[in-house]
Amino acid sequence: MHKVIFDTDPGVDDAMALLFLHRHPEIDLVGITTTVGNAPIDITTRNALFLAQAWSIEAPIAQGFGEKFDAGRRNGPWPTFIHGDNGLGNISIPETISRKADPRAAHQFIIDTVRANPGEITLVAVGRMTNLALALKADPEIATLVKDVVIMGGAFDVPGNVTPTAEANIHGDPEAADLVLTAPWRVTVVGLDVTMQTVMMRSDLAKLAKAGGAHVTLLNDLSQFYIDFYNHRVGDGMVIHDSCACVYVVRPDLFKTRSGAMRVVCGGIADGMTIQKPDVKTFPPGEWDGHPSQSACIGIDADAVLGLIRSVLVEGKAA
Amino acid sequence: MHKVIFDTDPGVDDAMALLFLHRHPEIDLVGITTTVGNAPIDITTRNALFLAQAWSIEAPIAQGFGEKFDAGRRNGPWPTFIHGDNGLGNISIPETISRKADPRAAHQFIIDTVRANPGEITLVAVGRMTNLALALKADPEIATLVKDVVIMGGAFDVPGNVTPTAEANIHGDPEAADLVLTAPWRVTVVGLDVTMQTVMMRSDLAKLAKAGGAHVTLLNDLSQFYIDFYNHRVGDGMVIHDSCACVYVVRPDLFKTRSGAMRVVCGGIADGMTIQKPDVKTFPPGEWDGHPSQSACIGIDADAVLGLIRSVLVEGKAA
Repeated sequence: MHKVIFDTDPGVDDAMALLFLHRHPEIDLVGITTTVGNAPIDITTRNALFLAQAWSIEAPIAQGFGEKFDAGRRNGPWPTFIHGDNGLGNISIPETISRKADPRAAHQFIIDTVRANPGEITLVAVGRMTNLALALKADPEIATLVKDVVIMGGAFDVPGNVTPTAEANIHGDPEAADLVLTAPWRVTVVGLDVTMQTVMMRSDLAKLAKAGGAHVTLLNDLSQFYIDFYNHRVGDGMVIHDSCACVYVVRPDLFKTRSGAMRVVCGGIADGMTIQKPDVKTFPPGEWDGHPSQSACIGIDADAVLGLIRSVLVEGKAA
Repeated sequence: MHKVIFDTDPGVDDAMALLFLHRHPEIDLVGITTTVGNAPIDITTRNALFLAQAWSIEAPIAQGFGEKFDAGRRNGPWPTFIHGDNGLGNISIPETISRKADPRAAHQFIIDTVRANPGEITLVAVGRMTNLALALKADPEIATLVKDVVIMGGAFDVPGNVTPTAEANIHGDPEAADLVLTAPWRVTVVGLDVTMQTVMMRSDLAKLAKAGGAHVTLLNDLSQFYIDFYNHRVGDGMVIHDSCACVYVVRPDLFKTRSGAMRVVCGGIADGMTIQKPDVKTFPPGEWDGHPSQSACIGIDADAVLGLIRSVLVEGKAA
């Protein structure tokens, strides 16, 4: 069993990833922490509570920090044209939700849970890296107590999606991401290099909803707005960014990775760009020296990833 | 006929490019300006004078600026492990050279020559962009009087060669390159995306020397040290970076280009990185807006380029 804390900003593709984690038989979802990116923190937390209630997910939910790690940076406009005004594709969400958040801040929840399960927790972070950075800052030793970190974010050998070089999750809080990538824990980065190849077609999701019942019907409903956004970019389907990171936890063999030190550009025209120095390449002494080698996903078996997601969402098992 | 000013830092691959420009029947080499990169300015100027004398090249030679465009930056160590201590592969060079440099500074020579030939001059720049930036600064109007600018430098969709993201010519003077790429003239960038694919084998160059006589024998001799450096990287041959830019002048059809605004990162861990925002991609408002679209070479018919170079070097004509 993989004990997972899911750091998420639901967000449409987050919703699919959450349902995947919940229904995969080898994943023990021990906590959900909310972060910022697809929507502000009050909305992502509300959405996490709503989805947990709708899907009967028992894991505690702790609200994360709604601002950026670097106090000098301010939140910009939210991508409502991708995730809708309410972060879940403008479906109807009840005003009152009975599920309540854990009283702890997300980074404290992460610290407590990691310390209670030394060497056992996989952090799957699919929004900005703010909570992970705050946890590292408050308790640097957790880096040695976490089993694995898997993040959705970044773009190494492909263009960015919010600037020519930067991906949204990293660009949203570059200093946090740089701290996370250079900490002495093992990070695998599932970025645009592989997620942009992984598209769930609208018609496939509709079929899953038919076969999977109310759980998947809700997922299908909330995904329509997002699919409309991606429609003219990738055909009539949705890029399932966040689910790719979740699949990596259970099936790393479906990915090709490259090892090397990683940094994030902080400031200037390449702000938020992820850079890796592959271990096999040598350069004059520079900014990548002395940092741990992390794994960048540079290849994916997208068909197998999509197939696994289909069977887990519908049948609650890996086919 | 293409009237060309060659801004160069000889440099081994510069030497081949110079001989190509001199021997190509449709190129009128109207001037040589020296810049910095492969070696410091006194050495690159001496080498330009030496090669011009050895190859009976009549074009005037004007010495460029030996420091960086941004006075706050300092020259670092020179790549003597690539081009040798004397910039020409450590071949013997006479202490006294009868050819003398033009009294003007390179950037003034560029301004004067462009103004004397409005709309007719192609600037081919294969070292740092310092002289071009100084010319633009002293006389911004020349941007509208130059026919074309073709530079060897940068790396768009491939890694850099001096850092994971930066190519040497641009990294050597990022502020100069950013000014050149954003000026209102037409720039084609021939960078590592295409030059790294273009390798002249040691054995081929030896054959050319046999067939081409003293001119090519000198080129072959001075290239051996450089080939030794590249040997374990690309097989037993030399990446002919600078010649690719020269070939582009006469045979742009051998290249695939992409249009879009370009900037250079100045400072930080991505210092000297070239970034293009392809015209076909849209992003939120950013640092690429309001700048002219320039051409990035992203594909090359390397065999045809090498074939053209062979026939021009040996026979003085395009086969």
